[in-house]
Amino acid sequence: MMTVWRLRQGADKRIRSGHPWVFSNELSQSPKGLIPGTPIELQDAKGQFLARGYGNPHSLIAFRALSFNSQEEQPTGFDFLQNKILNAWQVRKAAGFRGSFRLAFGESDYIPGLVLDYYLVRQNGKQAQVFAAQLVTAGMNEALKEAETFFKGLIEKAHKRGLSSFAWQDSAVVIRNDVNIRKLEGLNVEEPKTVKDIEGMDLSDIEILLNAAGDDGLISMSCDLKEGQKTGFFLDQTHNIYLAVNLFKNWAKTQEKRTLRVLDLCCYVGHWSTQITRALRHLGFDVEVSIVDVSKSALAFAKKNAEREGANVIVHEMDVSEGLTQLAASHYDIVIADPPAFIKSKKDIPIGKHAYVKMNTQAFRVVKKNGFVASCSCSGLLEEEEFRDAIRKAALRNHSEIRSVLRGGHAADHPTLMQFPEGFYLKMYVHYV
Amino acid sequence: MMTVWRLRQGADKRIRSGHPWVFSNELSQSPKGLIPGTPIELQDAKGQFLARGYGNPHSLIAFRALSFNSQEEQPTGFDFLQNKILNAWQVRKAAGFRGSFRLAFGESDYIPGLVLDYYLVRQNGKQAQVFAAQLVTAGMNEALKEAETFFKGLIEKAHKRGLSSFAWQDSAVVIRNDVNIRKLEGLNVEEPKTVKDIEGMDLSDIEILLNAAGDDGLISMSCDLKEGQKTGFFLDQTHNIYLAVNLFKNWAKTQEKRTLRVLDLCCYVGHWSTQITRALRHLGFDVEVSIVDVSKSALAFAKKNAEREGANVIVHEMDVSEGLTQLAASHYDIVIADPPAFIKSKKDIPIGKHAYVKMNTQAFRVVKKNGFVASCSCSGLLEEEEFRDAIRKAALRNHSEIRSVLRGGHAADHPTLMQFPEGFYLKMYVHYV
Repeated sequence: MMTVWRLRQGADKRIRSGHPWVFSNELSQSPKGLIPGTPIELQDAKGQFLARGYGNPHSLIAFRALSFNSQEEQPTGFDFLQNKILNAWQVRKAAGFRGSFRLAFGESDYIPGLVLDYYLVRQNGKQAQVFAAQLVTAGMNEALKEAETFFKGLIEKAHKRGLSSFAWQDSAVVIRNDVNIRKLEGLNVEEPKTVKDIEGMDLSDIEILLNAAGDDGLISMSCDLKEGQKTGFFLDQTHNIYLAVNLFKNWAKTQEKRTLRVLDLCCYVGHWSTQITRALRHLGFDVEVSIVDVSKSALAFAKKNAEREGANVIVHEMDVSEGLTQLAASHYDIVIADPPAFIKSKKDIPIGKHAYVKMNTQAFRVVKKNGFVASCSCSGLLEEEEFRDAIRKAALRNHSEIRSVLRGGHAADHPTLMQFPEGFYLKMYVHYV
Repeated sequence: MMTVWRLRQGADKRIRSGHPWVFSNELSQSPKGLIPGTPIELQDAKGQFLARGYGNPHSLIAFRALSFNSQEEQPTGFDFLQNKILNAWQVRKAAGFRGSFRLAFGESDYIPGLVLDYYLVRQNGKQAQVFAAQLVTAGMNEALKEAETFFKGLIEKAHKRGLSSFAWQDSAVVIRNDVNIRKLEGLNVEEPKTVKDIEGMDLSDIEILLNAAGDDGLISMSCDLKEGQKTGFFLDQTHNIYLAVNLFKNWAKTQEKRTLRVLDLCCYVGHWSTQITRALRHLGFDVEVSIVDVSKSALAFAKKNAEREGANVIVHEMDVSEGLTQLAASHYDIVIADPPAFIKSKKDIPIGKHAYVKMNTQAFRVVKKNGFVASCSCSGLLEEEEFRDAIRKAALRNHSEIRSVLRGGHAADHPTLMQFPEGFYLKMYVHYV
């Protein structure tokens, strides 16, 4: 019999609205003593079924729902979870993802606690697939403990459904539990571990393939899928890059100069600048890309990636919080300001917001007239309104008449749910100066 | 000497942040007695220059800024305003607009009070250009009183700058002061008037050309530029249609059936369904379009437009608030819910929000599984958060697991300013069911 938790009287409103969380103070009894990650049936104060999922007495979020269907008896079972992932995979295919993409985005794919990225990779002329998972809750940590078996089953099913052409021997599985967010669940922050390797492939310097932003092909990006940041690559900007690149292409067609200058701040492995380079090179432009990052290894990847598409690359190894004042004013046609999350907890908000103002102030200073600044924030705790205010301040310090001509958001492989506003974090505005 | 208005002590914060409005209670003296629309120099409490613009003692918004530059002596002069419009035109060209577009979007183009649409038109094999203006403030009403002279000058300058190839004889100018918002300024709501016609062209049933959403061509839409709603066409959805159509194209490529069904609610002249039809027909699908509107004349245009692109059209002349329950459940692959603004003043918010819930509930009811619902709101007074909540309620009534896979917003010809949140009104979410 599954453990049953009841809500306090009147505490069922959120869960009935489709939101998957229950906080510990909403339970009728203390959750103490439960083994973290145990499957739970949730009922309202009168004992009526609400949902099934898993519990954790050590987390503020005591319960997360996996199913609102009372027929579903095994919400943490392999079969149920694999089918959830296959459904999410179907959505990605329907939305047009042909290479790498986020395959499961936790709560927003109705699989709380699981972040799963799918990489189509290429090395020495051979293609393969890599799954990179973050198990960020005790429930998911528990459910996927037998990771090898789980992914073996998933890959077989995906193959059968026609979602993937790769079999187990051409698949790798990496578990990236090196994320601090696990501490909130009382879990250890672990070293990255490779559950399954692909013979003859080195995942620590490999090309991933993803949709090109400006044409129908696939673009290649070298990165480290063993130990690179997050799961090795930031897949979340694909839609915003697509939007911006198509805007830049339209603009470029109206330009008479032959060389366009792009500045990519906090470039990591250079996704923005590589995509922009490819699109502008296709139109016949020479592209000079200046990449800025603190990480030497990231810069090396970024240089390689942008050069592969034909950019002339200038490397600035520096901390954006200090170095940007050295860059020449009114020098770049396109400036990308896409920093890592400046705000990681509520107490960071004022300082973090100031960091966005500071970085964007420099972005607007160094962009040319009739050029673009793309300003991004992946800090979920920074409200969109506050982010707009930060850009406003930055712009006002430099220009009198600028316009926001594009608003971005989440890509279809990072879906959002109306009932789960916590899942929305990625903001982008492109300004024409 | 220009009339000078001073702000009360401490009332200068908003205008210094770049916001163009001053409310009457922020002035140090009553604005009474001023002729509405008179040019004004605004100063702070100490007499320091802040901005120049125009005033209206009959409006809550007593002053609107046209220039924050103290060198600019003639902020309501033809030359200054024409150059502002030409700058805005340049932005549209840079953003890739090749056909029709909004040329000036009031405050968001730094020209408070002026809404100006540009139409590239075609009739009997001949092309021409049409300017359709709404003068929504006393200041702009006053400044553009000599409309013919103003537009003659504008067209000459645009021709010289290479922005347009048309001369005065191939241009029409329509003034659409038939908007209730003029009442807030103490202005009359006037009949549409044609200041300048084009010989041999009938503007009341004419093809406008605009960027196709799914390919690089121009699409043709018949409409009434003399007396149709707004300025004859709703140009504001071009970006959202572009986003959605490209998503639908990707999805369609994964479909095996040959016929796709589209439902276009409140279709007006059928912009959504015509663009979708064109894109899906290019991929080889048969497209069945069901158009719904209360207006017989709008439906006639919509039918003509969608049929021109090869749709099989089914016409439903009905009020969406009543008729939608008659439509078959789980019947359409794509449902467009893009109603006119349900909320026109603050008191409408609760009823208006309910209307969005009701309409989207029907949209989610009639869409097929693995299909899309595009939900839009052009009610500026409905906060994005509230709109999301309306969609949440509607979705929850029909489906357990849906995902928002696309968030829209404003097109580049309806720019937004970070310092002017009032200018943001257009919201779109596409859900995959």
